[in-house]
Amino acid sequence: MRCERSWLLISLLGVACAACSHGAAGTSATETGPLATLRESVLASSQALETVRSLTDEAGPRLSGSPGNQVGIAWAVRALGEAGFSRVHTELCAVPHWERGVEEGAIVEPSAQPLALAALGGSVGTAPEGLTAEVIEAASLEALDKLDPAAVKGKVVFFSGVMERTRDGSGYGAAVRPRGSGASHAAKLGAAAMLIRSVGTDDNRAPHTGALRYDDAVPKIPAAALAIPDADVLHRLLAQGKRVRVHLKLGARTLPDAEGANVVGDVEGSAAPGEIVLLGAHLDSWDLGRGALDDGAGVAIVMEAGRQIGKLAHHPRRTVRVVLFANEENGLRGATAYAAAHAAELDKHVLAIEADLGDGRVYEARFLGDPASAPAFRVVAAAAAPLGVLASGDDAHGGSDLIPLVAAGVPAMDLRQDATHYFDFHHTANDTFERVHKADLDQAAAAFAAAAYAAADAPGDFGRVPADKRHRD
Amino acid sequence: MRCERSWLLISLLGVACAACSHGAAGTSATETGPLATLRESVLASSQALETVRSLTDEAGPRLSGSPGNQVGIAWAVRALGEAGFSRVHTELCAVPHWERGVEEGAIVEPSAQPLALAALGGSVGTAPEGLTAEVIEAASLEALDKLDPAAVKGKVVFFSGVMERTRDGSGYGAAVRPRGSGASHAAKLGAAAMLIRSVGTDDNRAPHTGALRYDDAVPKIPAAALAIPDADVLHRLLAQGKRVRVHLKLGARTLPDAEGANVVGDVEGSAAPGEIVLLGAHLDSWDLGRGALDDGAGVAIVMEAGRQIGKLAHHPRRTVRVVLFANEENGLRGATAYAAAHAAELDKHVLAIEADLGDGRVYEARFLGDPASAPAFRVVAAAAAPLGVLASGDDAHGGSDLIPLVAAGVPAMDLRQDATHYFDFHHTANDTFERVHKADLDQAAAAFAAAAYAAADAPGDFGRVPADKRHRD
Repeated sequence: MRCERSWLLISLLGVACAACSHGAAGTSATETGPLATLRESVLASSQALETVRSLTDEAGPRLSGSPGNQVGIAWAVRALGEAGFSRVHTELCAVPHWERGVEEGAIVEPSAQPLALAALGGSVGTAPEGLTAEVIEAASLEALDKLDPAAVKGKVVFFSGVMERTRDGSGYGAAVRPRGSGASHAAKLGAAAMLIRSVGTDDNRAPHTGALRYDDAVPKIPAAALAIPDADVLHRLLAQGKRVRVHLKLGARTLPDAEGANVVGDVEGSAAPGEIVLLGAHLDSWDLGRGALDDGAGVAIVMEAGRQIGKLAHHPRRTVRVVLFANEENGLRGATAYAAAHAAELDKHVLAIEADLGDGRVYEARFLGDPASAPAFRVVAAAAAPLGVLASGDDAHGGSDLIPLVAAGVPAMDLRQDATHYFDFHHTANDTFERVHKADLDQAAAAFAAAAYAAADAPGDFGRVPADKRHRD
Repeated sequence: MRCERSWLLISLLGVACAACSHGAAGTSATETGPLATLRESVLASSQALETVRSLTDEAGPRLSGSPGNQVGIAWAVRALGEAGFSRVHTELCAVPHWERGVEEGAIVEPSAQPLALAALGGSVGTAPEGLTAEVIEAASLEALDKLDPAAVKGKVVFFSGVMERTRDGSGYGAAVRPRGSGASHAAKLGAAAMLIRSVGTDDNRAPHTGALRYDDAVPKIPAAALAIPDADVLHRLLAQGKRVRVHLKLGARTLPDAEGANVVGDVEGSAAPGEIVLLGAHLDSWDLGRGALDDGAGVAIVMEAGRQIGKLAHHPRRTVRVVLFANEENGLRGATAYAAAHAAELDKHVLAIEADLGDGRVYEARFLGDPASAPAFRVVAAAAAPLGVLASGDDAHGGSDLIPLVAAGVPAMDLRQDATHYFDFHHTANDTFERVHKADLDQAAAAFAAAAYAAADAPGDFGRVPADKRHRD
């Protein structure tokens, strides 16, 4: 306990020092030491952007089970090796294999015109000839549940709720519920199919796909996301009291599981190599775009953070491990497999941080761990303070791929990225290299590098996540 | 001659008066008379935007020969009638009937990933199984012509020239040449197919289609536009010296001509109803989007200008005629048919103005007519000066649908619209209602209304276009 207190004192001095230049976008000219070197080296490099380019040009989309996913795995092994990581290896796992197939949509009444849509991940297809049915609109799951089942039966349920644009991406959580469970809600009422207004904030003709979850107790019905301008045409026509019928043809299908892999590389710790600070991102992506923001940018951020730490003359005490997870988008099989394969050493995982919000600048750090470790967390956050990162509370989310680790008690840190524009492109064909902004990506990579170093070099650890905070929706 | 001089005097007084408030975005509170009423009424109305909404929601895309084109014609007859136009009627003409069919594109080497592309209008299709060939890049027609034919034979020629963003849209003319004639240039060298970087200024995953012209002396080869992010992937891979092969499958085909129609409505003149000021826009659109900017906005601008002139207590001296042309996009059959059907009265067409640059604000007026009528043109331009419209030179372009009229000597006026953002969406799936900005559209409609009124109420006419200026590329 005494030991921990003296560490706290040192740590708090560190906070005060780092806070001198707090809020600046760059680093202080007077600051020295490995943290300053790290931040400056990341900001001066073009490697993070080049990583996104290389991944997206060479592998392209990387949906679990697709050829691009395999190309991505081979790319990651090569790229981690070239970046100087140790013990680069794959950890195989079975992943879902869902294919989109052909898809067509059209309004057929009141007059015919095409609809831009994309099946939701995991959706069943329609019959080969498609289906044609009247549309009934509901703003939300709750609004649907209030409708007379007789009015819904045989129709295409159209969820028209609008996602709000926010810096922290909170509009997504609020709007995404019909995507996840709307098909089964609609099927319970006898609907023939389900459409949603894409969960996004743009007005491009680019539908936002994303995974759904079927309730096994009701029939599986086809489900797709409409591009926002197309959803808005339906909404306007229906608002005028017009009878609207649509035709849908979806070739989506689920095949037997395929082989996927987490790709892992280490920057070996200098004093306690068996203790691990994990930096995670996911290598898979949806099929429509090229997975540049989601999650090529995250891959680039954690790889660049690890690469720059590895280049330091003296490595931090603990190992910094980069894990490029399989199958974040539609199954979390990679996250589950990692936690299972490393179950025996999870108690040596002292902190995990995930990058999965594109190229957004990091504006805030928050924590999930032993509340007694909050001061230690603040020291880690302070390492990124010269980049404009504020330390906040102990309510970290952790990220999807960290769910099984947090469930096992591994502390997590959120380096929260600005998501103001992320949901303009997320899960769409527009998620390409062109969307990635170098300066923002570099700031995020610098923040991850500094925080990872500080955590890996910290004298103490961060305890364990209390049992009552280990599970979340 | 004396008579013309006194008219000039009156006209120049008009210029001076209107110039008092020149540069202001709105209208002067102290100004009265029909021009002020017109400008204010247009700016206070929501009708122009509602016209775009109604056309695009109800008819959608309106490519010549498509069902949507017929719905658009019926819509226009109804809408012109509801807007109070006289003698609303269609003038039938044969139009090309080209269909896009299925289309697929992919890189197959160095690794496989999809390419977003769209066949160019008029392109032939590939064989049903598609074609797979190596890509050879050329920045321009001139660069292609310098290549060794042996290096081009059997390959897919990829034109990678980049369109520049400009207010006046001049980057389009410079960049569009490979779209028009690149396929035949490539075919002359034995190419198997032709791809272009879309002629546009965005970075969306939305290819820009547009018409090509085949040279009958060489084989017709399939031709398509790549979305800009996809063109840039090809360019980057080729710049690294990689061998790149692509697979293309295009179902495009040309069917026998279909029936189209110009739709015409008049605001009858109070003193010289046989003399005509023509406001033109085109009703057809490409198939990928909904033809909101191109040219739903133009349709709305000229319809709103005519509607508001028609609502005035006293109509101007001459008739203001709105012509919604058929088939501007891929044939100009409507423009040709109008000039032929009205050949006997073209000498009574005193001025023509076309709206075909989306919702852009009008910033400049320029002229093409009898140079001796330049002062009279300036009076017409001055009617829009309170909206911030500058009068410039006598080098008007006229607009595509006015080519046959100008060729017959009919004077034309350009109310030049700001095209800074127009080519982000032009000819793409993203050309939807969401792209139209009410305030900009209304300013343009007000400028068209004021200029049309001033021309229709002018005491004299504008002569004829000199013979040496009647033809252009």
